[in-house]
Amino acid sequence: MSNTAAKGTVYYKNEAYRQLNTYLKNQAPSKIFILVDQNTHRDCLNLFAQQISGSHTIEILEIEAGEAHKNLDTCNQLWKAMSELDGDRKSLMINLGGGVVTDLGGFVASCFKRGINYINVPTSLLAMVDASVGGKTGVDLGNLKNQIGVINHSEMVIIDSGFLNTLPASEMRSGLAEILKHGLISDENYWGKVSSLKDLSLEDLDEIIEESVDIKAGVVIQDPQENGLRKTLNYGHTLGHAIESYCLESPERITLLHGEAIAVGMILASYLSVELQSFPKEKLKKITSVVIDIYGKQEFSKKEISSIIELMKHDKKNEFGKINFVLLKDIGKPVIDCLVPNELIKEAFDFYAKS
Amino acid sequence: MSNTAAKGTVYYKNEAYRQLNTYLKNQAPSKIFILVDQNTHRDCLNLFAQQISGSHTIEILEIEAGEAHKNLDTCNQLWKAMSELDGDRKSLMINLGGGVVTDLGGFVASCFKRGINYINVPTSLLAMVDASVGGKTGVDLGNLKNQIGVINHSEMVIIDSGFLNTLPASEMRSGLAEILKHGLISDENYWGKVSSLKDLSLEDLDEIIEESVDIKAGVVIQDPQENGLRKTLNYGHTLGHAIESYCLESPERITLLHGEAIAVGMILASYLSVELQSFPKEKLKKITSVVIDIYGKQEFSKKEISSIIELMKHDKKNEFGKINFVLLKDIGKPVIDCLVPNELIKEAFDFYAKS
Repeated sequence: MSNTAAKGTVYYKNEAYRQLNTYLKNQAPSKIFILVDQNTHRDCLNLFAQQISGSHTIEILEIEAGEAHKNLDTCNQLWKAMSELDGDRKSLMINLGGGVVTDLGGFVASCFKRGINYINVPTSLLAMVDASVGGKTGVDLGNLKNQIGVINHSEMVIIDSGFLNTLPASEMRSGLAEILKHGLISDENYWGKVSSLKDLSLEDLDEIIEESVDIKAGVVIQDPQENGLRKTLNYGHTLGHAIESYCLESPERITLLHGEAIAVGMILASYLSVELQSFPKEKLKKITSVVIDIYGKQEFSKKEISSIIELMKHDKKNEFGKINFVLLKDIGKPVIDCLVPNELIKEAFDFYAKS
Repeated sequence: MSNTAAKGTVYYKNEAYRQLNTYLKNQAPSKIFILVDQNTHRDCLNLFAQQISGSHTIEILEIEAGEAHKNLDTCNQLWKAMSELDGDRKSLMINLGGGVVTDLGGFVASCFKRGINYINVPTSLLAMVDASVGGKTGVDLGNLKNQIGVINHSEMVIIDSGFLNTLPASEMRSGLAEILKHGLISDENYWGKVSSLKDLSLEDLDEIIEESVDIKAGVVIQDPQENGLRKTLNYGHTLGHAIESYCLESPERITLLHGEAIAVGMILASYLSVELQSFPKEKLKKITSVVIDIYGKQEFSKKEISSIIELMKHDKKNEFGKINFVLLKDIGKPVIDCLVPNELIKEAFDFYAKS
């Protein structure tokens, strides 16, 4: 009997582990590489390993935690290790961790011997609702995020909110930013629900994660190659990515978590939406207050703002040197491929500073 | 009007340049990166560039020639350069060179910003009949060949035998090995024709290149993911790759060209075919004399043979730690997934040494 799971299908909790064990039984990989970082090695690996039944050859691969290690050097070390451990084309990779582990691990699997199968087991809220779904894999190039990668779907995604018990509050907030984004680009009701979720309780969470995954997966299925609709998932990311890169690079700034940077990007994009797409002003106010309430405020000097705009030029979504923003006509009504003059971006930062 | 070329289609000479210019007009890439090594920069770039019509932004990227530079470091440098030159997702990469340039360039394009389009313009005989067709891209990992890569087809392949005018004779012989292989695995008549081609003349060549490309493309179309038939293209490569890797690694040995190593591998595989698949002995004799006549003979000590067998374990085609050979029942009748005892491999080397 062949495995009935469609490539990239998301499964939850007990059903997920059942599907995983069926998959392992049917596919009988020659070897399983489980990729972890030191945090998920300590906090998640035992929990996960005890769910695997049957007899398998398992090798644990550990990388350093954090965006700073999401690069080609780390890939190179993993490829060498997998080679030395006699990994072959029938090996399976399981990425157990946050977005760095799932993005990098997916890329490493996709290129090892021209591609081995992989499964994502996201352990952070951000990775659950964003990074592990949609087949985007990749690593950073210097301070430019996700410049190198491929689109290649995992065999399945396993979501178990039990892993969130050990996640720091800041990481929970970081994941919440993508959930807020899903509300803004797709559904005013969902936005209403999640914008009042400042204090995330684990009870609400299972339902919200599933709803967010459904929104993202729905978009990805309609536009896997990101020619149109999928670009809307980039809301808040054009400036958000640049802010994240800038803070990672600058010795004077504290590194921001992805969601913390995207949160700022969403306020800026909402301001630009008012100016260019007649987005309702009172909704901009609401978004701004919700976001600042959760994430606090960052300060940026004029010089820093110029550097951030410069960095934005390298966003993968740009074409022909033009920076393409996703803006909103209204909540749930995104508009892609919007050109924005630099002056207006500076105004948006001004608005943010004064909020 | 959309471009009618199917992905990966091979075009020849003037028709190829017409197709290229139609493609460039219709796709209007934001920028064209032409990848060369110092040899093709000097010998091929002008010839190629004068065939491009219309106005395009072109950037030349040069890498060091030779297999020793087919690695992740070179990729990393190219990705950085392309980023600094503001390459975006609508950029096009054109790989103008031998197999190192087309393999590495295809991989670099496939991963840059999660994939930009690329076109292969092979300038060596080997790349024309082998490397540029079939969508295999990749780089070496240490001394292990093509360990890291993806399968991703070029937009088109442009074959212009005019580039061969500047190719050294040793490189022509290297390409001939793959042509001989195409004869052995697919067609006794074609083998008869190409096995008497020791002194390749440019007149015969156009026809032979096209015939060899057709054989390879025919196999690849039937089995793009290499689950069965495509493995037959690996004839002579299991030991050949290991011999090539060994000579590249060993300070005491001269580096062999790919075809020179594959040539030895084909004699060894033909010997194994006699032993395990009742391949006719007189055909083994003929193959051995044709190959040694063209390529001369390599000498391997007992210790070297053991090292080569050890290296073979890392061949990408292995599964579950088993080394899978392609052998022949007869010329044109390949058998895949053959297990061969180490002792028999040593015997094959013995046979080669005494031939």
